[in-house]
Amino acid sequence: MADTEFVVEPGRQDVVMTRVFDAPRDVVFRAVTDPDLIPSWWGPRFLTTRVDRMEVRPGGLWRFVNTDARGGEYGFRGVYHDVLAPERIVRTWEFEGAPDDVALETVTLEDLGGRTRYVARSVHPTVEARDAVIRGGGPEGGRQSMDRLADLLATLGRPPA
Amino acid sequence: MADTEFVVEPGRQDVVMTRVFDAPRDVVFRAVTDPDLIPSWWGPRFLTTRVDRMEVRPGGLWRFVNTDARGGEYGFRGVYHDVLAPERIVRTWEFEGAPDDVALETVTLEDLGGRTRYVARSVHPTVEARDAVIRGGGPEGGRQSMDRLADLLATLGRPPA
Repeated sequence: MADTEFVVEPGRQDVVMTRVFDAPRDVVFRAVTDPDLIPSWWGPRFLTTRVDRMEVRPGGLWRFVNTDARGGEYGFRGVYHDVLAPERIVRTWEFEGAPDDVALETVTLEDLGGRTRYVARSVHPTVEARDAVIRGGGPEGGRQSMDRLADLLATLGRPPA
Repeated sequence: MADTEFVVEPGRQDVVMTRVFDAPRDVVFRAVTDPDLIPSWWGPRFLTTRVDRMEVRPGGLWRFVNTDARGGEYGFRGVYHDVLAPERIVRTWEFEGAPDDVALETVTLEDLGGRTRYVARSVHPTVEARDAVIRGGGPEGGRQSMDRLADLLATLGRPPA
């Protein structure tokens, strides 16, 4: 299986996560923007994900809730700045347990001719906030999400011509 | 007149602008969230500002247009992530002439007992994008806006008790 790459440079405020998927760009775009598909791939494997709200348009609100085996809930929310199908999504991103750290995430989907390079760049207001996300296991959660998304994409196949 | 301070560190992705205003926090909050007051202070002095859209709530869209003496227009737009009266506003921010650089701005108003510390932290997706804003005169525009806001606040006075 392809690997998910992270760039986390000391003293910077961003995290860049890259993964190449063996699926056409429009299929990847659908998987990341369809609320019905989010629970199948978003978040680490040991949590379940519920889509509380997901309005995929500029100004649209989104909120996902992770639930652990004991029923503990972890909410994430934000707003969409731009949705440019099938190539770019820009949105804000906040873990409700750390509301002072609002991040801005830009997801870019690059068409590689049947395959797709997914690049998620998240930038945080401070280096400390970025580092807290890293220490909190953000990259491992991201890696598991990308693996789960690859599994999902394999089941979606190519759209009708 | 008090000075506007900027922190722009090499190799980082953010710009922090700070100004202390001789006005109560709720008056400053009103000045920065009332669409009717925006044209009186937003932007450098040699441009006029028109509020095309300003929905001050999570998910609300905003768009301001600067016009120069020759009629040239410069649009700025984004969405509000959070509006927490009277202390914090988090929104995205994009110059339509450079749509690949979406910034996240957090404005914090700190109550100093009749005076207010205004802190605007803007973080950009890359160092290069941050530096382009600096080279393009962003700090000078910000400084003039802060001076104009101070002038406006002097005319607004204290709200009725």
